[in-house]
Amino acid sequence: MSLLVTGTIGIDTLTTPFGQADDVLGGSAVHFSFAASLFSPVRLVGVVGSDFPEKFRRMLAERDIDLAGLEIRAAGKTFRWSGRYVGDMHDAETTQIALNVIAEAPPKIPPVFRDTPCVFLAATDPDLQQDFIRQCTGAKLIVADTRDLWIHTRRDSLAALLAKVHGAIMNDGEARLLTGETNLILAGRKVLSCGPRFVVIKKGEHGAMLVTAERVFVLPAYPTTEVRDPTGAGDSFAGGMMGYLAARGSHEFPELKRALVRGTITASYTIEDFGVNRIRSISTADIDTRLREYAEAMRFD
Amino acid sequence: MSLLVTGTIGIDTLTTPFGQADDVLGGSAVHFSFAASLFSPVRLVGVVGSDFPEKFRRMLAERDIDLAGLEIRAAGKTFRWSGRYVGDMHDAETTQIALNVIAEAPPKIPPVFRDTPCVFLAATDPDLQQDFIRQCTGAKLIVADTRDLWIHTRRDSLAALLAKVHGAIMNDGEARLLTGETNLILAGRKVLSCGPRFVVIKKGEHGAMLVTAERVFVLPAYPTTEVRDPTGAGDSFAGGMMGYLAARGSHEFPELKRALVRGTITASYTIEDFGVNRIRSISTADIDTRLREYAEAMRFD
Repeated sequence: MSLLVTGTIGIDTLTTPFGQADDVLGGSAVHFSFAASLFSPVRLVGVVGSDFPEKFRRMLAERDIDLAGLEIRAAGKTFRWSGRYVGDMHDAETTQIALNVIAEAPPKIPPVFRDTPCVFLAATDPDLQQDFIRQCTGAKLIVADTRDLWIHTRRDSLAALLAKVHGAIMNDGEARLLTGETNLILAGRKVLSCGPRFVVIKKGEHGAMLVTAERVFVLPAYPTTEVRDPTGAGDSFAGGMMGYLAARGSHEFPELKRALVRGTITASYTIEDFGVNRIRSISTADIDTRLREYAEAMRFD
Repeated sequence: MSLLVTGTIGIDTLTTPFGQADDVLGGSAVHFSFAASLFSPVRLVGVVGSDFPEKFRRMLAERDIDLAGLEIRAAGKTFRWSGRYVGDMHDAETTQIALNVIAEAPPKIPPVFRDTPCVFLAATDPDLQQDFIRQCTGAKLIVADTRDLWIHTRRDSLAALLAKVHGAIMNDGEARLLTGETNLILAGRKVLSCGPRFVVIKKGEHGAMLVTAERVFVLPAYPTTEVRDPTGAGDSFAGGMMGYLAARGSHEFPELKRALVRGTITASYTIEDFGVNRIRSISTADIDTRLREYAEAMRFD
């Protein structure tokens, strides 16, 4: 099955304790797409300006990523973000941001994409995410990401969005902020009470948790010392997870568990180098190899 | 194989969002012993005052815990600690502390205990931990815990201690503080460079990590909403781990992995009620049941 993603496409400048990368390809939909395309064909929906480098478009086109939904606005400029990570690289500090075309009218889902069975809505205004859902008339599985900004500013819209998706994904701090629950299982269940059938809570270096009404699955991050740039880790995780679900055509609990494992492994590559450098260089064989190592390392009986 | 533990025995007053427990049995060696005695006979070494309630002594004696090393000082008073947990119950705030007999001369390892093959040294002054090691002439496996206080105040003594143990256990913050490394695998390896053959890093709600020179094992905490009092979670974890290793008579890597799993399961019971209430009430059958649930919940293929 194919998989549609809506989200940002940007030009990033990244600074970490391991160096700096200037004007590299970034954005939530980009990191998602590189990850997901290791598992399933991807349909990318997003908007850039006339300054969007042709080489970035080619980098995307080299993967199984359909760019019919990549809108290039001649009069606009591409979204730009500069971020710096210090110390434990837990949180990025935004040092510069220019929304540019992101602040204009949102892109439309192209008619040829409207039958896509799997849809991932990267974090943005929850009203816009609902608008995307209305356009995806053939969707069988819709999963939405969100972030603290929307919890603070659009709580009601976010609740309305959650009533329309099958799955929600957010990080641990956002789950706590949204629900007021400290315990992540309780937080997850409170999110479920808004409508989704499953919630995935990302915990960064501590892994991820899957919560459904009846069950919980928790898994550690891939243990690694190779962390040079965490940018895109969460979007890669979501991409690996959704790509796998799209390929399997199911989101039953055992498949969701396996999907979280694929997300974990995919994200473990992303963070090894700046931007999309590392994820661009790997194949499904690399995923399979690391997946076997991870499964073996986790085994205790 | 039997297992010796040195550490505190105290009277705790505990306040959490779920209630309060006044003057209950506590202390690192106590939480450790209840946990470890589910797997192996335990030899407890510690000191209390004349105010130590006889019912607390009986509670310990009901388990397979040898109290020949429990020294009762007629002129002294028992160590007392009052702690409060708020919000996410991540850290205890000490509201009152009276070291009492803990501030006097340390207990001696009774001659009949000196041949104990497995020894666990709960966190205390690392010079004292080294003194215990000198007395444990028959020890084949020595594991020491430490805490931030000793990293801040006794770094050299702690390094000397680490050169004399087979295994070290500490929490994630302490591993980072001790080594200056943010990445826990790198932190673990730096601890290994002081001497131990393995390091266990406890991550609270996020589980635990085992680091040896060649390998890493990481596992999540048992997912639970039943957390009423985190006091003793770390000591219970160590107790379950060491009790299992003592029972197996091995600390090869696969056994260490299984030992961490036992520690995880044991600690998951401790936190369900105040003090030792919950851990006192369970049997090895309960451990086995939850262990199966955990292994099944973790399985993804």
